[in-house]
Amino acid sequence: MFVAKVTGSLVSTQKTDSLVGHKLLVVEPYRLESDQRQSLVSTGRTFIAVDALGAGEGDFVLITQGSSARMTPETQEAPVDTVIVGIVDQVRVDQHSVYSRGEE
Amino acid sequence: MFVAKVTGSLVSTQKTDSLVGHKLLVVEPYRLESDQRQSLVSTGRTFIAVDALGAGEGDFVLITQGSSARMTPETQEAPVDTVIVGIVDQVRVDQHSVYSRGEE
Amino acid sequence: MFVAKVTGSLVSTQKTDSLVGHKLLVVEPYRLESDQRQSLVSTGRTFIAVDALGAGEGDFVLITQGSSARMTPETQEAPVDTVIVGIVDQVRVDQHSVYSRGEE
Amino acid sequence: MFVAKVTGSLVSTQKTDSLVGHKLLVVEPYRLESDQRQSLVSTGRTFIAVDALGAGEGDFVLITQGSSARMTPETQEAPVDTVIVGIVDQVRVDQHSVYSRGEE
Amino acid sequence: MFVAKVTGSLVSTQKTDSLVGHKLLVVEPYRLESDQRQSLVSTGRTFIAVDALGAGEGDFVLITQGSSARMTPETQEAPVDTVIVGIVDQVRVDQHSVYSRGEE
Repeated sequence: MFVAKVTGSLVSTQKTDSLVGHKLLVVEPYRLESDQRQSLVSTGRTFIAVDALGAGEGDFVLITQGSSARMTPETQEAPVDTVIVGIVDQVRVDQHSVYSRGEE
Repeated sequence: MFVAKVTGSLVSTQKTDSLVGHKLLVVEPYRLESDQRQSLVSTGRTFIAVDALGAGEGDFVLITQGSSARMTPETQEAPVDTVIVGIVDQVRVDQHSVYSRGEE
Repeated sequence: MFVAKVTGSLVSTQKTDSLVGHKLLVVEPYRLESDQRQSLVSTGRTFIAVDALGAGEGDFVLITQGSSARMTPETQEAPVDTVIVGIVDQVRVDQHSVYSRGEE
Repeated sequence: MFVAKVTGSLVSTQKTDSLVGHKLLVVEPYRLESDQRQSLVSTGRTFIAVDALGAGEGDFVLITQGSSARMTPETQEAPVDTVIVGIVDQVRVDQHSVYSRGEE
Repeated sequence: MFVAKVTGSLVSTQKTDSLVGHKLLVVEPYRLESDQRQSLVSTGRTFIAVDALGAGEGDFVLITQGSSARMTPETQEAPVDTVIVGIVDQVRVDQHSVYSRGEE
């Protein structure tokens, strides 16, 4: 799994039946900034994830990929390889906080 | 999943039986342009995807990879790891549109 | 899936039982050359693929990876993650041919 | 699998039901330093892994990814794609130790 | 699959039950040297693989990853995503040998 920031959304009216009704969000994976190691920075990559938790723009979320993305009640048997499995409250590295929800 | 642009097609007459009859399209993954964050740009990568939605050249599509690519009615049990699961109408990032179908 | 060029072969006499009898080929993934967009160029990567189609050195082939590589009659239940599922006749991008078999 | 260092943890109160009760750790993949080949260095990447072994910050651990991450008693059927399957005591390369627990 | 060189080993006493008794080797993926195309060179990456074939340090081996890594008799149902499925005798590219066991 990895941490990503929700930065947008995607609309697709013409899609595979089993995707109808799923909210599709733009998520950008983040990694630890490697010099100071005190914050998270974007990796510059962009994925589309299914959201089953009501995540909103600006939220940091926990992403699961691959076949395991089908292991949530909402995504079972669906052609989905990226899903939001948690909304992140805090990430701590080297014993200090590098992300805390609502404190950016 | 990720967003890709359909830019071409592939012909293969000699192929595994279960692939016969599948339309094979060239797709190029796109990511958010990282400076202005106002448009999508190519990642420079090239994949071949099975199309089950009638996507055409120039369309932006939603791609699913891995075992989940076999979770559409058309690709079940087929040796397929990349499938088009949606035709993209709009992508919004940071509350403005970075792609809108028919407005390029 | 992706397009790769068959450039060689691998011999292994000491191998897992279920791999005995499989032809193992060296394949190099290709991508669209990004400036002119008129040809395919090597990505510089090297994979080993199981061949079930009689592909030969110099052929461009279609590769499937991951669990889907086990979805051909020849590779079922085998510890194989890369398989040749088609021999490529033509690849077209931006409405012109970027690869045509026998015309290199 | 790959070797990673546990450097932190993640808190998420709002998450998929099957993740409740799992400890989520920040892990950074390490690779062999390529010049001297005498130590392990960070790859600069950051993953979140489920811990079932009681690993602590500073430990080097063995990570399994993909569907195989669901093959531990703790992660079966869970939407988990990265799991700690071992705490590393020693890594030897070219016949000398490049990591030994408690000797850093 | 890909070719890798066995360069070391890993010891972990505290590990998931189903990994007990498995030999864990350090393997470094190799690719074709891209200028002369006459030898294999390291990619600089480091993986840990389960060995079921008695591979030794210095051997070039064939590696399978993902769920297919569980398709050997030794790794079934185990949380293993990288396995050695063959010991490489020879790799030929462009009709000449780029690796031959015992001739380095």
